Amino acid sequence: MPDTPAGDIVTAAILVIGDEILSGRTKDKNIGYIAEYMTGIGIDIREVRVVPDVEAEIVAALDALRTRYDHVFTTGGIGPTHDDITADSVAKAFGVSIDVDPRARAMLLERIPEADLNEARLRMARIPAGATLIENPVSKAPGFTIGNVHVMAGVPNIMHAMLDVLAPRLGTGRKMLSRSLAAGLKEGDIAGPFGAVQKAFPDVGMGSYPNFQEGIGFTTTLVLRGRDEGRLDEAEAAVKAMLETIKAQHAQ
Amino acid sequence: MPDTPAGDIVTAAILVIGDEILSGRTKDKNIGYIAEYMTGIGIDIREVRVVPDVEAEIVAALDALRTRYDHVFTTGGIGPTHDDITADSVAKAFGVSIDVDPRARAMLLERIPEADLNEARLRMARIPAGATLIENPVSKAPGFTIGNVHVMAGVPNIMHAMLDVLAPRLGTGRKMLSRSLAAGLKEGDIAGPFGAVQKAFPDVGMGSYPNFQEGIGFTTTLVLRGRDEGRLDEAEAAVKAMLETIKAQHAQ
Repeated sequence: MPDTPAGDIVTAAILVIGDEILSGRTKDKNIGYIAEYMTGIGIDIREVRVVPDVEAEIVAALDALRTRYDHVFTTGGIGPTHDDITADSVAKAFGVSIDVDPRARAMLLERIPEADLNEARLRMARIPAGATLIENPVSKAPGFTIGNVHVMAGVPNIMHAMLDVLAPRLGTGRKMLSRSLAAGLKEGDIAGPFGAVQKAFPDVGMGSYPNFQEGIGFTTTLVLRGRDEGRLDEAEAAVKAMLETIKAQHAQ
Repeated sequence: MPDTPAGDIVTAAILVIGDEILSGRTKDKNIGYIAEYMTGIGIDIREVRVVPDVEAEIVAALDALRTRYDHVFTTGGIGPTHDDITADSVAKAFGVSIDVDPRARAMLLERIPEADLNEARLRMARIPAGATLIENPVSKAPGFTIGNVHVMAGVPNIMHAMLDVLAPRLGTGRKMLSRSLAAGLKEGDIAGPFGAVQKAFPDVGMGSYPNFQEGIGFTTTLVLRGRDEGRLDEAEAAVKAMLETIKAQHAQ
């Protein structure tokens, strides 16, 4: 497995392609899945975009994201129908040709009888020149990697399987570690002191996440994120001490 | 209710703000909700972006989206803690000042005793100059509209309530109508003829959405979208005739 030097930060973006997400007809479940997966292997997702099935929009988003981040993960638009234009758009963004790839065609034949391999189904074997295939153990039609862009299916369980194939090939960075603390106080009561603790630990990201539950009201979760275990320990201790101090004040 | 002339198309983008979405710790549920809601009232969501709690990123995304679409809906980053920087970022993008707004402060006092209205909680009343408030019936701290940007909470049930307040103020367009058909065939068997029907109806958007269920395999839903009921009827009839033809061929 290729690996970047410890301490290096590896960044990525997610590009979701599909009219059905923008219309709200399909509720995206891929962003959260990829984000959590990448955090787990030490790749920081820095941006997400969702664009329609329009070539110019896909190409513009690809170019904005692939030049800015180490990796781009796309989902959607690699099926056999006329609205599946991701592979052609990626080829256009990279300025390479695209045609039926014999390796991809052979993969399709593992599941589809040759007599059924019509022009439409062969669209799923159209791969930009120079791309590496991402095998699809679920339904065979592969994704692919070209440059730093990784093209995957939009159907969640197929995307999951492709991600498992892809992940070991990615150069990962030093993992972002995190600690979650239930504050037991309202956000407004901790915000001032919490901001002060954040200032004392500029290398540890600190976030406060309110949740609202009917009948219970607001609860607050504090999340500390950083790459150094020791600093996280120190920051966690500082936040806990802060919470105890506020609770003691409230008890007076 | 302001309304644009029938036939006009009203476009919008969604900007989700928050490190917790990019890390995968919180799974976004707002994109799909807003998208479906806007489709229902005749506003087309054309793009979505998710950015971190970083001012420069928020400002850059706001500027890219607000100049391109009729509306921008943001979620997240309007609470009392140091990582809540959406209001300040929006003020910066619009080049206006921001301070505690007496109207917003009065709303907070409906829920929070004055003695508890500390500096942190008052952050929730910081509103860019010239903005219109979006009332928050759930927890009082308001969102706001400035120019064509509508700033809402990230907590889903609060965002839902704000959207109900906001929606009647939006100029909506001619609704996008849609028809869904269960194809009863595999995507690869319909893709060729389906593309031909799409060519015959360039004013009706046609998408094919595969689903994969363990034990059942692939199913296909065809979705037709357009603003003219009559044309949708014609397109639907053409697609149904196409499906019948293919099924008859398969039966032979």
